Amino acid sequence: MDTVDIVVVGAGLAGLSAARTLRNAGRSVVVLEARNRVAGRTFGGFLRNGVPVELGGQWVGPTQDAVLALVDELGLETFRTHDEGDGLTAYDGTVTRYADETFGLPEASAAEVGKLLAEIEELASTVDTHAPWETDGAEDLDRQTLDQWLTARTDDTLALGFLRLLVPALFSAESPELSLLHFLFYAKSGNGLDTLVATTGGAQESRVVGGTHRISERMAEELGDAVRLGAVVHTIVQDGDGVVVRYENAAGGGGGAVAARHVVVAIPPMLAGRIRYSPPLPALRDALTQQIPAGSVIKFQVGYPTAFWRDTGLSGFVLSLDGEVGVVLDNSPEDGSCGVLVAFVEGAHARRAAELGPDGRRKLVVDRLVAYFGPAAADPFDLVEQDWTAEEFTRGCYGGRLGAGVWTQFGRALAAPVGRIHWAGAETAETWNGYMDGAVRSGYRAAAEILEILAAEQG
Amino acid sequence: MDTVDIVVVGAGLAGLSAARTLRNAGRSVVVLEARNRVAGRTFGGFLRNGVPVELGGQWVGPTQDAVLALVDELGLETFRTHDEGDGLTAYDGTVTRYADETFGLPEASAAEVGKLLAEIEELASTVDTHAPWETDGAEDLDRQTLDQWLTARTDDTLALGFLRLLVPALFSAESPELSLLHFLFYAKSGNGLDTLVATTGGAQESRVVGGTHRISERMAEELGDAVRLGAVVHTIVQDGDGVVVRYENAAGGGGGAVAARHVVVAIPPMLAGRIRYSPPLPALRDALTQQIPAGSVIKFQVGYPTAFWRDTGLSGFVLSLDGEVGVVLDNSPEDGSCGVLVAFVEGAHARRAAELGPDGRRKLVVDRLVAYFGPAAADPFDLVEQDWTAEEFTRGCYGGRLGAGVWTQFGRALAAPVGRIHWAGAETAETWNGYMDGAVRSGYRAAAEILEILAAEQG
Repeated sequence: MDTVDIVVVGAGLAGLSAARTLRNAGRSVVVLEARNRVAGRTFGGFLRNGVPVELGGQWVGPTQDAVLALVDELGLETFRTHDEGDGLTAYDGTVTRYADETFGLPEASAAEVGKLLAEIEELASTVDTHAPWETDGAEDLDRQTLDQWLTARTDDTLALGFLRLLVPALFSAESPELSLLHFLFYAKSGNGLDTLVATTGGAQESRVVGGTHRISERMAEELGDAVRLGAVVHTIVQDGDGVVVRYENAAGGGGGAVAARHVVVAIPPMLAGRIRYSPPLPALRDALTQQIPAGSVIKFQVGYPTAFWRDTGLSGFVLSLDGEVGVVLDNSPEDGSCGVLVAFVEGAHARRAAELGPDGRRKLVVDRLVAYFGPAAADPFDLVEQDWTAEEFTRGCYGGRLGAGVWTQFGRALAAPVGRIHWAGAETAETWNGYMDGAVRSGYRAAAEILEILAAEQG
Repeated sequence: MDTVDIVVVGAGLAGLSAARTLRNAGRSVVVLEARNRVAGRTFGGFLRNGVPVELGGQWVGPTQDAVLALVDELGLETFRTHDEGDGLTAYDGTVTRYADETFGLPEASAAEVGKLLAEIEELASTVDTHAPWETDGAEDLDRQTLDQWLTARTDDTLALGFLRLLVPALFSAESPELSLLHFLFYAKSGNGLDTLVATTGGAQESRVVGGTHRISERMAEELGDAVRLGAVVHTIVQDGDGVVVRYENAAGGGGGAVAARHVVVAIPPMLAGRIRYSPPLPALRDALTQQIPAGSVIKFQVGYPTAFWRDTGLSGFVLSLDGEVGVVLDNSPEDGSCGVLVAFVEGAHARRAAELGPDGRRKLVVDRLVAYFGPAAADPFDLVEQDWTAEEFTRGCYGGRLGAGVWTQFGRALAAPVGRIHWAGAETAETWNGYMDGAVRSGYRAAAEILEILAAEQG
């Protein structure tokens, strides 16, 4: 059995950021990853013409300082998401073009949306992102689902539909599936709802040249053979002296174990709940892992010979209250060698679309793109899909969410170490929770926890 | 590797009922149980004076025909729960005694409670318990939490508090944590809310002599060495020919595997999600297992020399809106050899009480019993507690619940077989869902599924 200072479970951005920090501080590490690749919920693919496309998390933006600094440190580069031209919003069977702040909604509904967004920002500003359960009025904010709050605030069907659409766009889940408190926490953690929704100036502002998975790949290269792929961790044993992390080989044929002083579990809380712990986890922590289900999203990258929508002054950005494709953005390569639209089927739509075959989903997506962009959208040269709910070692994206009552009753167990077990992952981040930036920050935080303990022990 | 016709995972009422049915139909079975005992969420304990007390599920009642017939078949006997005398309801710092249908509430609040219960019964009558997602208006009923519906229906604080108290009494969870549709389904599945709440004529009417765990123990005796204790199942592999179920010995030192044609997974859905499946489960089924968290309950059996409360005409039944102990019943043995009160700390109270030590919890419970029954309650000769959230192989009682949006989006995966994998357990029952009776019925249903397939294969 190998012995190192720290074992990390999961070679996504959180786990690798933790491992790299610990290694750079002079500690020995092993990273155990169930998949045959690193990078977790970021993943690189290619269109038939060789253009790289991101099958998972793909955008970075201002105030995401941790991931932006890391990109820089690793010698990677970013480029701006295409964001010129008019947007489209589809509702009531029509597609409306707009160039202002109205999202193409009728004046009254646009005003209502503005009012609701302002109220959300104001409420969100009161949240204690370090300890959301200690927010003023936390019990009341957590007792309500987001949908409950929205339906009580407005009678404008269109405004309500628009707000309800933003929820799967951010969480791949529907507005009854998260508490108002979670939504407010998440919005504040990402610098406000406007920032989350915006391209330029917001969370979709930039992309990483070659794809965001390269961030993880570069960290894994630095770590060399400390990263072990195909190692499915099933048991973590701890006692006063240290931990033993046991894994099974994904390819079959036995497994192994690594001993260490501490372990960082850097996988989503729900997946962390599927590991067996000895001694068993405290009740509160176990109950938490039962209550952070992942969202449902199928992501489509659709390639065209050119970005034809730009020719007519469209940005490629679509929000749709009609049909299964709720969000579309221009995802063309920087060099303009072809046009790419990225289309998201999220939440309830994803749950239904998963039952269709790939051909059925292809038709569904292309038909909607034709509805938005006209007949030129009917013949993509390629369409690549990624269903994150079907991935055994992710089981849903964008991330775990907290439903009514969970933050106030169980939230304190989200990032609190259990003996020698430290928790990382985008779900545990105070800043940019659920985003790549949050994942990186969580890895740094877990590493810092351990370094502090080790330093104290050495006196 | 052993080979049998059917492997059953879990030796609770569901698994043993399935195994026994299959065995009686001439099929060979092995039952793998992680614990060193059978009976799952039923469990027998003793007070210091040797009087048996149930640490888990303990009551049976009319219309629970499956479990009542099984009790009879196994040569066990039942006796009536003590239910004579006045009830108590605690609210606003006072304890009110009543002998009528008012639950001791002021007239206006009692009327409001009656009105709400009648509305619930009427709505519940519309639910399709076979397929709740096909109920008329299912989307709307499922979009709301139970708390959302309750708060929209009444302004009477006391009536609202009373209804909110019934929720942890039934689910060990709070009213925002389940959807209205789930509550209505559950009520109808158990023959109506009145039946669920009632002692005589209802779900708490009778007890099993010696304890309900004897039902499982007798079935296990029949099955003999087909039941293997201490076998923690971690992987289920299936292909066109059959299944292989792999387990680890709870005591350490390796494990084993059993091959079979079919497997019945008879553990709560959330725990079923912690097994690894090859091929991986379909996305919808996996997502379901992420969204049926267990409730939180700590159950206390408090022994006194006599059932002193009966002397002053009290039944021992308490519902309390004040303090941590929400529900109390007389749980004295049939022979009157001592007095026993069973006290429940449920939902949010259980989550907080779990953080106290045993001494703190003892004080908390005894202080409340003194508030209800006077100083005579101050000196129990014994107090036995059982925290179901701390049990590694249960992780919460009474059972899994479905929150807002879960039934309509994921419910169809609850009991539907996945290839050669069949699901049993109280959570999968259409009738008496969540109860011992539902567990038994679910075992019979899973066995019937398999027998039908095997019979068809034999032509």
